[in-house]
Amino acid sequence: MDVRIISHTPDPDRVCAIAAALTHSKKKPEEIERLDDETLMSILSRVIDLGHLSVVEHASFTFAISGVSRALTHQLVRHRIASYSQQSQRYVRIEDARYVIPPSIERNEGLRKDFEELMERIWREYNRLLEKGIPEEDARYVLPNAAKTNIIVTMNARSLLNFFELRCCMHAQWEIRELAWRMLGEVRKIAPIIFKKAGPPCKTKGFCPEKKEECPWYPKRDRT
Amino acid sequence: MDVRIISHTPDPDRVCAIAAALTHSKKKPEEIERLDDETLMSILSRVIDLGHLSVVEHASFTFAISGVSRALTHQLVRHRIASYSQQSQRYVRIEDARYVIPPSIERNEGLRKDFEELMERIWREYNRLLEKGIPEEDARYVLPNAAKTNIIVTMNARSLLNFFELRCCMHAQWEIRELAWRMLGEVRKIAPIIFKKAGPPCKTKGFCPEKKEECPWYPKRDRT
Amino acid sequence: MDVRIISHTPDPDRVCAIAAALTHSKKKPEEIERLDDETLMSILSRVIDLGHLSVVEHASFTFAISGVSRALTHQLVRHRIASYSQQSQRYVRIEDARYVIPPSIERNEGLRKDFEELMERIWREYNRLLEKGIPEEDARYVLPNAAKTNIIVTMNARSLLNFFELRCCMHAQWEIRELAWRMLGEVRKIAPIIFKKAGPPCKTKGFCPEKKEECPWYPKRDRT
Amino acid sequence: MDVRIISHTPDPDRVCAIAAALTHSKKKPEEIERLDDETLMSILSRVIDLGHLSVVEHASFTFAISGVSRALTHQLVRHRIASYSQQSQRYVRIEDARYVIPPSIERNEGLRKDFEELMERIWREYNRLLEKGIPEEDARYVLPNAAKTNIIVTMNARSLLNFFELRCCMHAQWEIRELAWRMLGEVRKIAPIIFKKAGPPCKTKGFCPEKKEECPWYPKRDRT
Repeated sequence: MDVRIISHTPDPDRVCAIAAALTHSKKKPEEIERLDDETLMSILSRVIDLGHLSVVEHASFTFAISGVSRALTHQLVRHRIASYSQQSQRYVRIEDARYVIPPSIERNEGLRKDFEELMERIWREYNRLLEKGIPEEDARYVLPNAAKTNIIVTMNARSLLNFFELRCCMHAQWEIRELAWRMLGEVRKIAPIIFKKAGPPCKTKGFCPEKKEECPWYPKRDRT
Repeated sequence: MDVRIISHTPDPDRVCAIAAALTHSKKKPEEIERLDDETLMSILSRVIDLGHLSVVEHASFTFAISGVSRALTHQLVRHRIASYSQQSQRYVRIEDARYVIPPSIERNEGLRKDFEELMERIWREYNRLLEKGIPEEDARYVLPNAAKTNIIVTMNARSLLNFFELRCCMHAQWEIRELAWRMLGEVRKIAPIIFKKAGPPCKTKGFCPEKKEECPWYPKRDRT
Repeated sequence: MDVRIISHTPDPDRVCAIAAALTHSKKKPEEIERLDDETLMSILSRVIDLGHLSVVEHASFTFAISGVSRALTHQLVRHRIASYSQQSQRYVRIEDARYVIPPSIERNEGLRKDFEELMERIWREYNRLLEKGIPEEDARYVLPNAAKTNIIVTMNARSLLNFFELRCCMHAQWEIRELAWRMLGEVRKIAPIIFKKAGPPCKTKGFCPEKKEECPWYPKRDRT
Repeated sequence: MDVRIISHTPDPDRVCAIAAALTHSKKKPEEIERLDDETLMSILSRVIDLGHLSVVEHASFTFAISGVSRALTHQLVRHRIASYSQQSQRYVRIEDARYVIPPSIERNEGLRKDFEELMERIWREYNRLLEKGIPEEDARYVLPNAAKTNIIVTMNARSLLNFFELRCCMHAQWEIRELAWRMLGEVRKIAPIIFKKAGPPCKTKGFCPEKKEECPWYPKRDRT
């Protein structure tokens, strides 16, 4: 999995702070833009603490994500307040077996070997179908959920906060959870105020809506 | 593929017509609701002809779709102005090989046999992984795009009109195109005014934005 | 203010319950639809309790709202996951002074009288502008926030739950709060399971994100 | 009216071009990012010409807009694929009469004078209500549609293209049309490829969906 921010709203904390300040001020935008950073950041922090998250929608982040499975992207694109451009299996021919192995399978020598053999077998059939004149969009029906894909994703900060709540959680599927934590690591460097308290609900809200006692994070929450 | 409407806004043409009438009228809603059907339908037709489609958002349709491939649903859920509830491969164990065969493969005896054998081989491995204690959410990495799934979809009429423009088109992938035409057949029975001119752009707009000369429908458009 | 549901997904609790059941079941949609009401409603309740609210998006409600101020509708239409058809001040000529008086003004005899006189004065000018040939869309610039308007609104149940959290709250503006409580009263009759715990966060979540000590509801929350 | 871009995706044409290229390429994102500008821009132009506009969603623009009427913003915020932070009349006290005069009124000496007098009268009453202890959120009920407001708006390029189609049109209301053309002027400097053909449908599509013969632009379209 490779996750990189390839573009983002410059100085996202500042833009969102200006928007927050404008709503409760007589001042014109150009005057608000001249406020010092300390004033602006304290306004932004207060507004986020109150849960008034619409102001952070003004900041967007574009990620280039590669080497993730189609199992992951089928989940990812369910997040509707976002923009996606994905490598198309209808038009792009992937001759070589390129796939993600779940850790639970990889750590078992025998299962791993069988998994890899099956992947090779699948791609042989895929290539054979193409040779026989079957179009890519039909040959791909044999390709597995494990098949690697590339995708460019843009989300605004509010949608990202929601994404992190759902996908950084221990109940999220391991591959999309890894993606979520890596995305969070990246955005935090760029917008430290906006994402200061981002993460799963046990971190952000102090409680677990899933109410699953077996979660290893659950007790930490309780002691807070 | 099985496609059925399991719920919808009752009398959708009428509800949207009332909304259309309200915007340009002094009358209160209860007076507009008493207008006769002929008046209301003529208002709705005129508004739709002008391309003012926001009024048809007041009508929603819920489809139960089963026996379609995960290749299809990965495309389907890219339509963001819609609501989805899909059978989860993370939690539901699908022991038997249940899959969609593309017609281009099915019509070739040899390719079809190999395809079926590969599917059986994949599901054997899937079941073996489960027996070895691998969770469903990881075992599913071997499952193919062809794997069948069930999904419940709700879209409002405006989002459906857009869906039909994109997916009834000859350039759409065959499986989602079949779904789109079947959905269109169903909604037309219930909302004949709203969906009177629904379909691909060559039907609705009289031109092909894809500009692909090789389309078999393209000449028909020209002669209109 | 007049608030009426003029259309809705029939049997909304049931449709959402079917969607919830489908996601975790091997069963085909038609089998799930045959499940008895008790089973379905218990599935729906559990899913809502866990905060998995996407399933309630399958139910939509259409409200005819009349006699509310343009101050209210300017706030209302900020809710983006919704569909609106509003009486247009650009095209509809409102000759008579029709307006909402805030209770804080109405209860003071002197202020009320002055308010009413100003309204009459405004509408005289509005009608005069029209007589002089000024188009409706320009004459309306003199009309006040208090001017009454009619609007038809469709929201799905998930968007409504969010609307109620924000607008049933004591910190919401009084007019939209009245609207929100009346809408909640209506939908609860039709979808008792979905809206069982709907309302402001102090009711639904057991805490106040606004953290305002002066709220009369706040202590009740604390004692829970 | 003052319209300024205060933030935007850096190099928006390039980011969208990378997204467009990725969908039909075997290459990894980092390889696509190394493509030269000419190649990327030709891919982007082709994709936009085909009407595949999802790729331009990756670019966002944030505008600070001040000195527009509340009549305008009530229309503006109806565009739902956008983010807004507006100066609140509930919390911000606007002591001085600050308002927009429609040109049709301004150019008539007598009407203009009466309009201005009415505005002064309205603000006197507004200030008097505040003095009497009426809260801002209630006193504002007397304020007119003409009252000036400030708003920060973020839209992605796809949503902007749609906004321009609707609001640059001669049938749009004059104030929001002026805003739309000024926003278009700004974004074109920053993203010349994306917005090359932006504007009303008679410019972008070569026909008028409104079918109104009296439009002064209409004949130009016909001669094209």
